[in-house]
Amino acid sequence: MGLLHFLLLSWFLSVHLLCFLAIAQRSTYIVHLDKTLMPSVFADHHHWHSSTIDSIKASVPSSVDRFHSAPKLVYSYDNVFHGFSAVLSKDELAALKKSPGFISAYKDRTVEPHTTHTPDFLKLNPSSGLWPASGLGQDVIIGVLDTGIWPESASFRDDGMPPIPKRWKGICKPGTQFNTSMCNRKLIGANYFNKGILANDPTVNISMNSARDTGGHGTHCASTAAGNFAKGVSHFGYAPGTARGVAPRARLAVYKFSFNEGTFTSDLIAAMDQAVADGVDMISISFGYRFIPLYEDAISIAAFGAMMKGVLVSASAGNRGPSVGSLGNGSPWILCVASGYTDRTFAGTLTLGNGLKIRGWSLFPARAFVRDSLVIYNKTLATCDSDELSQVPDPERTIIICDYNPDDNGIGFSGQISRINQARLKAGIFISEDPAVFRSSSFSYPGVVIDKKEGKEVINYVISSISPTATITFQETYVDGKRPAPVLAGNSARGPSRSYLGISKPDIMAPGVLILAAIPPNIFSESIQNIELSSDYELKSGTSMAAPHAAGIAAMLKGAHPEWSPSAIRSAMMTTANHLDSTQKPIREDDNMVATPLDMGAGHVDPNKALDPGLLYDATPQDYVNLICSMNFTEEQFKTFARSSANYDNCSNPSADLNYPSFIALYPFSLEGNFTWLEQKFRRTLTNVGEGRATYKVKIETPKNSTVTVSPQTLMFKGKNDKQSYTMTIRYRGDSDQSRNVGSITWVEENGKHSVRSPIVTSTIIEVWGSE
Amino acid sequence: MGLLHFLLLSWFLSVHLLCFLAIAQRSTYIVHLDKTLMPSVFADHHHWHSSTIDSIKASVPSSVDRFHSAPKLVYSYDNVFHGFSAVLSKDELAALKKSPGFISAYKDRTVEPHTTHTPDFLKLNPSSGLWPASGLGQDVIIGVLDTGIWPESASFRDDGMPPIPKRWKGICKPGTQFNTSMCNRKLIGANYFNKGILANDPTVNISMNSARDTGGHGTHCASTAAGNFAKGVSHFGYAPGTARGVAPRARLAVYKFSFNEGTFTSDLIAAMDQAVADGVDMISISFGYRFIPLYEDAISIAAFGAMMKGVLVSASAGNRGPSVGSLGNGSPWILCVASGYTDRTFAGTLTLGNGLKIRGWSLFPARAFVRDSLVIYNKTLATCDSDELSQVPDPERTIIICDYNPDDNGIGFSGQISRINQARLKAGIFISEDPAVFRSSSFSYPGVVIDKKEGKEVINYVISSISPTATITFQETYVDGKRPAPVLAGNSARGPSRSYLGISKPDIMAPGVLILAAIPPNIFSESIQNIELSSDYELKSGTSMAAPHAAGIAAMLKGAHPEWSPSAIRSAMMTTANHLDSTQKPIREDDNMVATPLDMGAGHVDPNKALDPGLLYDATPQDYVNLICSMNFTEEQFKTFARSSANYDNCSNPSADLNYPSFIALYPFSLEGNFTWLEQKFRRTLTNVGEGRATYKVKIETPKNSTVTVSPQTLMFKGKNDKQSYTMTIRYRGDSDQSRNVGSITWVEENGKHSVRSPIVTSTIIEVWGSE
Repeated sequence: MGLLHFLLLSWFLSVHLLCFLAIAQRSTYIVHLDKTLMPSVFADHHHWHSSTIDSIKASVPSSVDRFHSAPKLVYSYDNVFHGFSAVLSKDELAALKKSPGFISAYKDRTVEPHTTHTPDFLKLNPSSGLWPASGLGQDVIIGVLDTGIWPESASFRDDGMPPIPKRWKGICKPGTQFNTSMCNRKLIGANYFNKGILANDPTVNISMNSARDTGGHGTHCASTAAGNFAKGVSHFGYAPGTARGVAPRARLAVYKFSFNEGTFTSDLIAAMDQAVADGVDMISISFGYRFIPLYEDAISIAAFGAMMKGVLVSASAGNRGPSVGSLGNGSPWILCVASGYTDRTFAGTLTLGNGLKIRGWSLFPARAFVRDSLVIYNKTLATCDSDELSQVPDPERTIIICDYNPDDNGIGFSGQISRINQARLKAGIFISEDPAVFRSSSFSYPGVVIDKKEGKEVINYVISSISPTATITFQETYVDGKRPAPVLAGNSARGPSRSYLGISKPDIMAPGVLILAAIPPNIFSESIQNIELSSDYELKSGTSMAAPHAAGIAAMLKGAHPEWSPSAIRSAMMTTANHLDSTQKPIREDDNMVATPLDMGAGHVDPNKALDPGLLYDATPQDYVNLICSMNFTEEQFKTFARSSANYDNCSNPSADLNYPSFIALYPFSLEGNFTWLEQKFRRTLTNVGEGRATYKVKIETPKNSTVTVSPQTLMFKGKNDKQSYTMTIRYRGDSDQSRNVGSITWVEENGKHSVRSPIVTSTIIEVWGSE
Repeated sequence: MGLLHFLLLSWFLSVHLLCFLAIAQRSTYIVHLDKTLMPSVFADHHHWHSSTIDSIKASVPSSVDRFHSAPKLVYSYDNVFHGFSAVLSKDELAALKKSPGFISAYKDRTVEPHTTHTPDFLKLNPSSGLWPASGLGQDVIIGVLDTGIWPESASFRDDGMPPIPKRWKGICKPGTQFNTSMCNRKLIGANYFNKGILANDPTVNISMNSARDTGGHGTHCASTAAGNFAKGVSHFGYAPGTARGVAPRARLAVYKFSFNEGTFTSDLIAAMDQAVADGVDMISISFGYRFIPLYEDAISIAAFGAMMKGVLVSASAGNRGPSVGSLGNGSPWILCVASGYTDRTFAGTLTLGNGLKIRGWSLFPARAFVRDSLVIYNKTLATCDSDELSQVPDPERTIIICDYNPDDNGIGFSGQISRINQARLKAGIFISEDPAVFRSSSFSYPGVVIDKKEGKEVINYVISSISPTATITFQETYVDGKRPAPVLAGNSARGPSRSYLGISKPDIMAPGVLILAAIPPNIFSESIQNIELSSDYELKSGTSMAAPHAAGIAAMLKGAHPEWSPSAIRSAMMTTANHLDSTQKPIREDDNMVATPLDMGAGHVDPNKALDPGLLYDATPQDYVNLICSMNFTEEQFKTFARSSANYDNCSNPSADLNYPSFIALYPFSLEGNFTWLEQKFRRTLTNVGEGRATYKVKIETPKNSTVTVSPQTLMFKGKNDKQSYTMTIRYRGDSDQSRNVGSITWVEENGKHSVRSPIVTSTIIEVWGSE
């Protein structure tokens, strides 16, 4: 320590000791500023921000906390909104609020993460549709904000990628990269942001201080959105083949803001700010908050800024379904994505001694040898939860049947599998219909899961045979043409959005169950007994996996239609989404309930149809400003989103009736059950993006307890880009079951070529998240 | 049971009850006949054989045993020798001996089995040498006599195979096939032979009554010899890549004679008889007898017959090394193959907390996740053989170091690994230099094996660190350029041949340690803890794996030089074999001793050099007849090999001095240590197979305790196929260490193009196997 430094510190300490040991706990705050009010003395906004902090330092009596002896700037932001993050005490924050240009401030907080056959399942193919129309995404950049990336993965090789256009060359910045040489034609940028973590605790040791992924989530999402073709990969022998992202030629720019040491809003905003500055075409983020009001939701705030700059954000709805109102990222300007199963399933085949073959469920991560082993069934043991299992004679040659007892508070599949492991039995035959089992890749001991009907057949064989035996084979992957697909994942989070009830959320459903994508090769993936295993590719499930699917498709739409706005892209995806499954019946949840728009949005994304939607529900930045003008915001809250009022017409025309491709009509919950008729009127404008003149006629599917009227019933477009408007009035009432009644309005082109469908849903009003 | 049948049975039983319950135990005998003495009344030899049995039935008083109520014909043989196998009592055998044409008979007995980077290791390549010269073997058939085949294996697909020539089309015979449709351009025939098993016990239920392999040995050997290119295969992640046989375009004809229910000589002979009848070019057999005199060794007898018909038999030496005289299949007319390591090794990398990286040995059959785990070393626990292991705190996060204690009767690596498994420790670091560990593919718990020097480094780190940690990575495969290769496998069986001491055996060494080849997908391969696993490809070790390597090469030599005799092919392989390893030093055993010709034969096979050997030591069928004339055989024993004396000059010129490409000089063991000088003279004739005139000069490496003189010292060949002879005289004496003294005689072409080397070895006389 230099002498001067020592003296200053001594002075600093002594002042504070004199000041009755003024110890003020500091926190990181996200601060929004109105850049138009930046005093002209400042050379640039960085100068303004640091001077603001300096002036606070000068004006507020000094204080000290565990980590910070003074207020400190963490990040400057200028793209998704204008402002900064800084470590401030309450007094310093109070002083800041008096600074010129101050709009709002809220505490930094932590963000939580949500988790490839899918191109086939999505019917993406090299000969027609979105893949060839977008050059497989080669002209767009997808920004993935997550836990970073494992650049050496085969999914991020740049074989077959065209050279990087000049305008993108700056994205791979020396100094901010983990290793600049890791950038290539596929991975064109990789930055990391952890000043917020360090601001929170400067003593923390960042174990991987680079964009390198140590968790796997980011690598998985990035390769799902835009992984290159990677041959000969699998999840421990399941789902073998060539992995590829939805947009296999799209460029990736990766922004790591989630670290082993923490995940903070200030870092997230810095990441999104940089992504927008870098010119990404699409952002994918599979993180979210809970219990946060819209005006403090940094993903929402930053996504608003991104949208205003023409960048759509695809975000995961979260995995807290099926509770009502459990979704996050439900802002009107985000593409909020729900998660579904594909038509692919992972099997073990059970062959009984009598020749009966049953294809059961298995993801046991090796090819276990289970052949002609004795099978036992015993009512007492069949709960597979007792220590008596260890008394089974000759366990290493014995397969046990475990019953499904969800109603008896049974220990469930994972508990049963660990008991069988302890008893060192040969394998288990698990009777279960718990959907959670079929979303999980965890299967640490040999066995198969079969349903109750199959279970009965097996038990009948076992109890009627002198020496019942079975053979089980593993590592089987098949596409089940008979099973309906897609099916909504039970844990996909549900609307309405507690951020803002006025727009039906989620928007769309995309594959998110057992998605094969890249992971770092040096992390724990699955286990066999107590032995932990690693892999290069892994099956993961969650809306985290669905959001990058939607992002990849949206990016390719941007590539194919560079003139489309974020709203136009989302509209194309929503109005062409399929609300029916492969059996042409309404998509269901994995508990067999029919999925509503508040569960799955408009339906399952159909990328090739989205390429040519016929009509679009477009919305401009001004429309979004008008929307937030209609919200009951304080001016400060308003400006947090809309920043400088100079850029837009400032709330002269507030409107909650955003030109959105879905409809929600809310009714108050009534304990007494006396529901009156309500009426809601929507006005919508459609833009013709088909070639030439076109005439569309309306087709209505009326929700229960409702009447729907539309005017006019025919829309005639004079040519491409012509706009036509209509109004839809819904008279509806609630019921005491809190029903969600579902309908739709579809504009069908006379020649039958295009069909533009929007879901309608009525729902009870639920509580919106407010400030803590 | 029909009435007539009942009456006959009653009569049969009553006759025998009257005959004092004549119960005579019957056995299966292999019977050699002189076909020239077949009475002309018989239409064919089958008729003769069955009539012979009928006449015995008529002449010998009836008797009954547990299974057989009468003598019974099992097989007729006509290709490798003439005769049959039959179930006979002693009386019936005695009667048979009086039949016309009878030569000899011996009891059927059981045969025991001996186990693909190797084409690279053997420098086989598409651009030069044996592969292009032989069209990768496309014009030859390799007959594999073993446990059958798994025809659906990728190794037996016929992609890229030329059509089957007309002359071979009969090999895939309907009725004898497991499924005729399984035959294709690669697998042109698949027969099975189990009448001998059924003769031994007619009640036996043959569980796989077809050529389908249920054990794996046959599939592995067949794919090693002639497997097609099979992409993307591995042994549980080790040795990944494209597997292919040595002769990837050669045709396969498979003869299954080894069943789960038994492996009998009578079936083996039937298999070899059929193979020769089918016109195979080369036979590979990885089975053998122990303690059997030459004249009762059915493989030897049948191989003699095959050789007489121009078919060389490549047979494994066995895995009972390193004992002196432990080899089987050591007949002068067989290509007897020893087993060596390749230059490829399978690793786990151990990275200590201090950064030190050690590439250890591992074949743990999955990618275990072992990262930054605590390492403990404790003298008491380090034997890893006590129950105290279970008291290690936090075992699932702890790696233990296990010492190598071969001298203390330690439990060894496999014992240690099972103790660590029981204690559920994270992994083991095993200090071992036991070569058997590095030939085995069994590795059921995570860990690495390191040597003593590395062990010291690791222990030093652990005992000097507060919190020592290690990371282990798995599934690593590398070619170690620094390590000498090949190295002889310690368990490869050794000469001299107790069948016949006069020819040095084995003949040659080929890759046989951890060879990746196909196995049936539904058998037990490796385990993880108590969980058994299957695979499509497996690493196996043994001379069983070496013999098909040699067979594949020999077959391609036949393809490239259709005019070469079995002896010529063997000579080409032996005189061009490499007795030096990759470091240009003499090949060693895995215990570091230098390998002698009685361990490895002439050296490691070099297929490309064998294509163009310069000179050949050829031998005709008559030469082999002359050789057996020199053996102290009874006429019966002699005829067992040489069958009809009409075909060959019948012992007018007996000679033990076969024109063989190696030399052995034997001395008697002396307890007193008084060794006198002995002298042995050899005469050899070389055939020039190079183009045009050629002059060769001799180069002698004299064995210790010997003098070698050669006359002439220069051989001048006037052109292709010209023959020149020389004599070599060795004066030698033994020593009380029973030394094997090693030298060589090499004929070096003046222009240096060819070099024709034969090993010389002196050795003590050991006991030869006689009749039981």
